[in-house]
Amino acid sequence: MNQGLAQQLFQTIDSWPILDPHSHVRPQQPVAHSLADLLGYHYYTELAQSAEFEEGWWSDQAEPVTRVQAILPKLKYLRNTIQYSWMMLISREFLGIPADAWQTQTAEWLVQTAQKAIDAPDYQQTILQKTGLQRIYLTNAFDEPIKSYDTNLFRPCLRVDDLVFTPATSQVATRLHTTTGCDISDLSGLKTAVREVFKRFVQAGMAYPAVSTPANLVFEPVDDVAAESMMRPMLDNLQPDSGVRDRWASWMLQFIAGLCQEYKVPFHLMLGVTRNAYPFGVPSGKDLFPSTNRIDGFDGLFNLFPKVNFPTSVLSDTSGLELTAAAWIRHNIYPSGHWWYSNNPIEIERDVRRRLELVPWNKPVAYYSDAYYLEFVLPKFRMYKFCLAKVLANAINESAQHPNREPLTTDDALAIAHAWLLDNPKRIFQE
Amino acid sequence: MNQGLAQQLFQTIDSWPILDPHSHVRPQQPVAHSLADLLGYHYYTELAQSAEFEEGWWSDQAEPVTRVQAILPKLKYLRNTIQYSWMMLISREFLGIPADAWQTQTAEWLVQTAQKAIDAPDYQQTILQKTGLQRIYLTNAFDEPIKSYDTNLFRPCLRVDDLVFTPATSQVATRLHTTTGCDISDLSGLKTAVREVFKRFVQAGMAYPAVSTPANLVFEPVDDVAAESMMRPMLDNLQPDSGVRDRWASWMLQFIAGLCQEYKVPFHLMLGVTRNAYPFGVPSGKDLFPSTNRIDGFDGLFNLFPKVNFPTSVLSDTSGLELTAAAWIRHNIYPSGHWWYSNNPIEIERDVRRRLELVPWNKPVAYYSDAYYLEFVLPKFRMYKFCLAKVLANAINESAQHPNREPLTTDDALAIAHAWLLDNPKRIFQE
Amino acid sequence: MNQGLAQQLFQTIDSWPILDPHSHVRPQQPVAHSLADLLGYHYYTELAQSAEFEEGWWSDQAEPVTRVQAILPKLKYLRNTIQYSWMMLISREFLGIPADAWQTQTAEWLVQTAQKAIDAPDYQQTILQKTGLQRIYLTNAFDEPIKSYDTNLFRPCLRVDDLVFTPATSQVATRLHTTTGCDISDLSGLKTAVREVFKRFVQAGMAYPAVSTPANLVFEPVDDVAAESMMRPMLDNLQPDSGVRDRWASWMLQFIAGLCQEYKVPFHLMLGVTRNAYPFGVPSGKDLFPSTNRIDGFDGLFNLFPKVNFPTSVLSDTSGLELTAAAWIRHNIYPSGHWWYSNNPIEIERDVRRRLELVPWNKPVAYYSDAYYLEFVLPKFRMYKFCLAKVLANAINESAQHPNREPLTTDDALAIAHAWLLDNPKRIFQE
Repeated sequence: MNQGLAQQLFQTIDSWPILDPHSHVRPQQPVAHSLADLLGYHYYTELAQSAEFEEGWWSDQAEPVTRVQAILPKLKYLRNTIQYSWMMLISREFLGIPADAWQTQTAEWLVQTAQKAIDAPDYQQTILQKTGLQRIYLTNAFDEPIKSYDTNLFRPCLRVDDLVFTPATSQVATRLHTTTGCDISDLSGLKTAVREVFKRFVQAGMAYPAVSTPANLVFEPVDDVAAESMMRPMLDNLQPDSGVRDRWASWMLQFIAGLCQEYKVPFHLMLGVTRNAYPFGVPSGKDLFPSTNRIDGFDGLFNLFPKVNFPTSVLSDTSGLELTAAAWIRHNIYPSGHWWYSNNPIEIERDVRRRLELVPWNKPVAYYSDAYYLEFVLPKFRMYKFCLAKVLANAINESAQHPNREPLTTDDALAIAHAWLLDNPKRIFQE
Repeated sequence: MNQGLAQQLFQTIDSWPILDPHSHVRPQQPVAHSLADLLGYHYYTELAQSAEFEEGWWSDQAEPVTRVQAILPKLKYLRNTIQYSWMMLISREFLGIPADAWQTQTAEWLVQTAQKAIDAPDYQQTILQKTGLQRIYLTNAFDEPIKSYDTNLFRPCLRVDDLVFTPATSQVATRLHTTTGCDISDLSGLKTAVREVFKRFVQAGMAYPAVSTPANLVFEPVDDVAAESMMRPMLDNLQPDSGVRDRWASWMLQFIAGLCQEYKVPFHLMLGVTRNAYPFGVPSGKDLFPSTNRIDGFDGLFNLFPKVNFPTSVLSDTSGLELTAAAWIRHNIYPSGHWWYSNNPIEIERDVRRRLELVPWNKPVAYYSDAYYLEFVLPKFRMYKFCLAKVLANAINESAQHPNREPLTTDDALAIAHAWLLDNPKRIFQE
Repeated sequence: MNQGLAQQLFQTIDSWPILDPHSHVRPQQPVAHSLADLLGYHYYTELAQSAEFEEGWWSDQAEPVTRVQAILPKLKYLRNTIQYSWMMLISREFLGIPADAWQTQTAEWLVQTAQKAIDAPDYQQTILQKTGLQRIYLTNAFDEPIKSYDTNLFRPCLRVDDLVFTPATSQVATRLHTTTGCDISDLSGLKTAVREVFKRFVQAGMAYPAVSTPANLVFEPVDDVAAESMMRPMLDNLQPDSGVRDRWASWMLQFIAGLCQEYKVPFHLMLGVTRNAYPFGVPSGKDLFPSTNRIDGFDGLFNLFPKVNFPTSVLSDTSGLELTAAAWIRHNIYPSGHWWYSNNPIEIERDVRRRLELVPWNKPVAYYSDAYYLEFVLPKFRMYKFCLAKVLANAINESAQHPNREPLTTDDALAIAHAWLLDNPKRIFQE
């Protein structure tokens, strides 16, 4: 019964186009060059390494067949994971390789067979069509070119981690100088340069600037005088201590939030990651999070910029209700997606139910893929959409039995799903 | 099957009278003056503001129609929330307004139609009867009159936040002096005054003193000498630093716990709220909580007063198992209700299942409404009771299949529910 | 359907032999002397005391009938708990006492009837057979004899808490000297003695050393020079401050991890307990945990010893996803069992689902009993196995409906269960 209803809801929700409001896709090469690029997604290399560690077993630079040979014998350990299911969908739907071929065929065969599909002239178009991908947002470095791609499909977003957390080092200053021409030898120059970058992104149709932050950051207002005095030693490449680093980060977050206010764009926050926790990790596989992970360190920022909208993601499951409560009372917090280590069905279902029970339906940004290649958008969104359909089906059923709940019809449920997946992000990100 | 069993259990549980051991109802005016009072409950103003913020959109002082006009256009965004369901039950059951009228009628019509019901001479009696409300506990300021109301229906509870957290400021001292006649110029005078207040409440049938505390408070024993030395500058209105504030709070908690021991009443704790986190909030809509929220800061208090019973609520879902474990081993901790941001079905169901699996059935205090008007007691208790019925139905079913669980019959399950909802609070609060 | 499938999976999983990789069973007397030993398990004394406290109600030294008389009237309050179900299984399966006799019979009758079963010459053998217990791991003090028992059934594990957390006090030093003959008057002597102990355990077939740690410990590398300077005052019985205690603990953890690396054995971590939080507690019933409980304080240890495997348990539910994520990317972290306050169906089901969705199947160590008597192995493992069967049944069903999940067959699910319960522990603990 319930299962039938969940599937019925899923069918409808799955038929809608996808707006994907956060990814790492590169517009110059949005799809994989080879099967090895797909298997080289850090989820697979992480899990494979975790299952069976061998020193030097993986290199991103190796030939495609070598990479697939490295990971293939370890894949059997991952067959239970949700990530393995993503890959099998890609394999069947986009590469024409049935799932059981992964148990019987060689790396060479898999690479070659995949390559035939990838090299087809309509490969990217087929993926876009099967995915129903309407638009996908990017993660752009502040100094990368952002004009040379299909802005109908891709929308730039300015990633500001480098500015916020590697503050005013000569390397960042050099990059800022190179891209803007500004002299970065004092705070005023730095501000001019960052504003220049921001303006350039706004003109290119930026959806938002985005930042990922460590778990322990506590924002505090910092004025320009204090920032100026912190900046000087950094330019000489003196390492600031952790207190200075945090206050510098606060100042830069504040400056960027100010630009968001001025240019009327939201500021996307992704809270709670510990970078480089695991030095033996594969590329992009070194980061973790602590379970003691709170949002309220950003209260000061939220309160200082009531006119800036903050779509916000959390990495730790323990922050799920805190984010829900913030989205419930704060007018400028929008719960956004299910990030990384919380991007699995059990955590998604829990937070979806919370947002359904407690947050006005016009606020959540349902989901983003965080994908590096377009191939991953469909399996990730389908995973999410099935979770959403399950939670909605349960809510429909329960509302029918519950003497104290308003009836939730199938149409109501689909309207909520549509708002979360399409209408809310379009409004919040000004599509 | 399971659904049928849950509904069957719910029917029985819902037929019982309600003892509501914590509310903010005012005995002089326990029901709403108008529809605007009901819609002005902070849940609705918070959610409406969060959904669609407009500067100055809400004023508690505005005329009823003005208030309803302010919130009505925003209500559509809340239709998915559990709180909206509460209001629709009130609308149908108590105001005679069908739920769909909220989509079609004007604010004027809604206010006037509601007013007809509210102005009926038996309005309050009808609510009490439909709710089956046997008794409801209050939240009383230390200096409010507590004798002038129906003590058969209402039971006073002394809220001590002012004493604990705004310590011995001249304003609190003045209020204490006014209400007790004591001279509050030294610790001994303060103690006499607080004891006087306490005694007055005990004589008026107080169920318990109650306090809500911030997440980071760590209780430590503080002796009178240290308290005396902290008190003097406060009376001169010098702001204590946070260390002094916390130690003062510890001293006062200790003094009040000592009075609880002497007068054999429990001390109700509500742990983990951050006051005024969101300055733009509507009235009562400014508070939040951090997810890093632990109970063990109160270990010192629990250990110092083994003869005092502490019914305890937590605000953060992350403290749910810690509270369950404390109730499991500590003889003087009673898990109490599901507070505020954790008062939603998903968190309730989880903590109910924990308490059912791990805590002796004679300990939990099932639920309290926290309501400001009697109208909200029924919808909130029904929400809780349905969650309880679901968890019990699952436990019954599982016990029937599980080769390792004792059979849980429907009668067993109802006995547990009865204990949690009625017998335990009556024993713990000495009804 | 789902229920039928869960039961079917359970039947198969329950038919397998049990490898129990952590317990407190004493090989000289692995079964209870009397019913009072079973009812004296801290779960029952804790819950009984929590339900109805009386000063001095319990003594571990009292006669069996006296102990059973003390607890019997309180048992009725625990009938809802999972722990009560454990006892009833023992009662029916091993003692021949039907569950309802506990409501109708006297303490004397229960003790005597149980004693007939316990005194039967094949009592232990019957328990082993009904349990299907293949092997069980022990918790051994560093100075206890470890050679005098059936090493086919029992496998020693070196508990190092005393060494790590009561550092180099004269009492520990005396015990170390007595057991090894080494002179413990300096760090070099201490190292020799600990190495001697370690070697003795390795030679006796030790599975691993194990340690339980407080929630707030942050490991930091400490060199021998620093350790030497910390050691001297401790030998004179001067109490180190908490900073020194933590750094000493770090040094000792590092030294033991080094021995693990040298002797190629894993290091079992149990993270997050607060000892002696509740001074009125019954024996073994004084410990709790804070919900703010993170794993990443041990990052330094994990990174320093990439060749040491760390089977890791957490006490707090809030650390469940952090442990899952660590097991997902770190090659040397193995999520192990469901410890103590998290050893209840609701927490187990959640973490089982996480590990199933996110961790390679060759990593989890499913479960351990933590039992003090062999009688408890079967009911605890059955509790776990039923949770596992439920989660697997749900995953099978969902994979059949989900357009985005690989099919999970019953055989696949059973293979995962077999790996978690038997193959993984055998490999990790080198059976």
